[in-house]
Amino acid sequence: MADKGFHEVEGGLLAPAGFVAAAGEAGIKPAGLDLMMLHSHTAAAAAATITTNRFRAAPTYVTERHVADGSARTIIANSGNANAATGAQGMRNAERMAELAALNTHVQVTDTLVCSTGRIGVQLPIERLEAVIPQLGRDLNRECAPQVAQAIMTTDTVPKECTVRLEVGGKVAHIGAICKGAGMIYPNMATMLCFIATDVAITPELLRRALRRSVERSFNCISVDGDMSTNDTVIALANGQTENQVIADEATACFQNFSRALEFVTQDLAKKIARDGEGASKFIEVRVRGAASWAQARQVGRAVTRYNLVKSCIWGEDFNWGRIAAAVGASGVDLDPATCSIALGGILAFAGGEPVVYDEDEAAAVMAADEIAIDVDLGAGAAEAICWSCDLTPEYVKFNAK
Amino acid sequence: MADKGFHEVEGGLLAPAGFVAAAGEAGIKPAGLDLMMLHSHTAAAAAATITTNRFRAAPTYVTERHVADGSARTIIANSGNANAATGAQGMRNAERMAELAALNTHVQVTDTLVCSTGRIGVQLPIERLEAVIPQLGRDLNRECAPQVAQAIMTTDTVPKECTVRLEVGGKVAHIGAICKGAGMIYPNMATMLCFIATDVAITPELLRRALRRSVERSFNCISVDGDMSTNDTVIALANGQTENQVIADEATACFQNFSRALEFVTQDLAKKIARDGEGASKFIEVRVRGAASWAQARQVGRAVTRYNLVKSCIWGEDFNWGRIAAAVGASGVDLDPATCSIALGGILAFAGGEPVVYDEDEAAAVMAADEIAIDVDLGAGAAEAICWSCDLTPEYVKFNAK
Repeated sequence: MADKGFHEVEGGLLAPAGFVAAAGEAGIKPAGLDLMMLHSHTAAAAAATITTNRFRAAPTYVTERHVADGSARTIIANSGNANAATGAQGMRNAERMAELAALNTHVQVTDTLVCSTGRIGVQLPIERLEAVIPQLGRDLNRECAPQVAQAIMTTDTVPKECTVRLEVGGKVAHIGAICKGAGMIYPNMATMLCFIATDVAITPELLRRALRRSVERSFNCISVDGDMSTNDTVIALANGQTENQVIADEATACFQNFSRALEFVTQDLAKKIARDGEGASKFIEVRVRGAASWAQARQVGRAVTRYNLVKSCIWGEDFNWGRIAAAVGASGVDLDPATCSIALGGILAFAGGEPVVYDEDEAAAVMAADEIAIDVDLGAGAAEAICWSCDLTPEYVKFNAK
Repeated sequence: MADKGFHEVEGGLLAPAGFVAAAGEAGIKPAGLDLMMLHSHTAAAAAATITTNRFRAAPTYVTERHVADGSARTIIANSGNANAATGAQGMRNAERMAELAALNTHVQVTDTLVCSTGRIGVQLPIERLEAVIPQLGRDLNRECAPQVAQAIMTTDTVPKECTVRLEVGGKVAHIGAICKGAGMIYPNMATMLCFIATDVAITPELLRRALRRSVERSFNCISVDGDMSTNDTVIALANGQTENQVIADEATACFQNFSRALEFVTQDLAKKIARDGEGASKFIEVRVRGAASWAQARQVGRAVTRYNLVKSCIWGEDFNWGRIAAAVGASGVDLDPATCSIALGGILAFAGGEPVVYDEDEAAAVMAADEIAIDVDLGAGAAEAICWSCDLTPEYVKFNAK
């Protein structure tokens, strides 16, 4: 293993031992795969983080209830319909999805988690799900990771997977994960759909802690459009097939190593979401340093990633660093411009309360890149955070006009 | 007078007695009027509200200092350059603008207020202002209200004025006002530039209270892009030329009448800003009812006016009410969807926790209008608030790419 304790491999969601999956077409989307099921052969520790949106979707309530005991074995998820703002019928449909998935994977209904993503306010065509879920149950296999990643896509242009191999207690383990998301991306306490499978043996409590921390530093650091979704859900299942000694102590090297690997996986996927933002042409990384706390650094970073005028001028390749200053100042953080510095594309533009003279040709040149770094130093402490975003383009608007 | 105690008239900023103004070209913008001065012949009560952005512009500090004693006589303002994030030189330039304006209108420098609007992070060409301000001092007259309204425009497509005639203590008085703003519009405690002149006699303290309240319910209720500016400033000057008995008591009918007229003026101008939002094709009014408090109602309203996906689908004329639900749920207000109702373009789409069946042809038809109403009832109280916005269009992005 590399000295960071893990490394990236191929394999996707099904790299960890003991998981099977299936994907199908239920006709929820006009065409293509729109339904998937993930299943662990054995009991698995389970953890989830769910959107804080008050209009959150019916399936998020079912998932929250079923994951509360820290164990689950089956995930059923559809794309093309969010099952949000759908009232009592929506809740019955989410529960029905769980029942059908439980029945067809031979687990308790409380061991089944449910997710939906797509248009808000439209009832699910539940009879189509009733027809297809049994077939998914029969199809469960270890070869369909790419199809499963496709089945949760909505406006995504590419499927998003990440897999790492790590060593725990002298045994080789895997984390495989998929996610989806391109618009309505401004997660708070969770994000768009992300499913993480691992064969590591870990207690539900420690899986929860590791997941919460890694979500805070990954999905909760990205913005495509500043719009929080009704359906954001991240689920991790850990089935222990690696047969390592169960990770039960936060102070152990095993837990630290697993946490670092999990953070790598979630950050990789979060960046993939930002990079694939609706209509996006450029990827933006905002690095905030010199903050009094990590939370403060992230608050400034998120303010910059949310500022439409910063995102517009990056699309237009205009070295308009003043808009970054406006965004930093609007972040709500009690900061002093006199101690701040701002660099755009590696070129220092503002330092010690003063604008800095820079080479205009060089500034124009850095803006042509596909990846734009924004560095903000608050000069107020030692904490730092990184946030990710994409540019705002006319295509984003056209895309979301319907 | 109409029974509301005031009515709208022509005349703009110079309708009130005792005010003169001038506009000129200082070459800060590539072409056109970019500098204006407003002056009261006599002492005037003064009040201002200023942006809470931490990177606020140098002139906002000068204005804040000079208005602190509650009196001022001259306003100098330029467009084309924000004088924000410009360090010590920027502060010297803002102070120099005040000195020049004071010198050329024969008032104390502390009776002079300064505003700038335009690009951030670029130093003002102060030598050009030094050349033009004396000329403005000589040109002061009562005929140039339209030119003055033009001189503060940046990306605005139309000048924005509002004038009302009111009666105070049996005498006829006026409020004349201008404002500018089209992008970087998400005011907090103030807004883009707005200058209000009135010949009413009122104490500085009551002018401040009336201004603060009316700004809260007007400029602080609009959003074009959710991006708070570095320069937002609203200034009111009241020179008492009406010779009414000085308004000094909040409980009087005179104060109530003046406050209502001021609120009308600021709301009229705020709506004009939303209507003229960069690239906008439609005007959006979000009416939130049934809230526990006015602040809660406005918080929900602002969340909806800031949600890019709501604004995009209104541009696309898509009856996508589910995005309004997502925005309401993301507002941070502790609300219960089961008591909420949502109507779009007058068509009820969600009520009592359930989606409502509506006529799809009718829904398509209402979305074709130039003005779109969004009604949200939280079902949690009797308070209400109205917020204003515009659609998000590909033109907004193209506009701000440079």
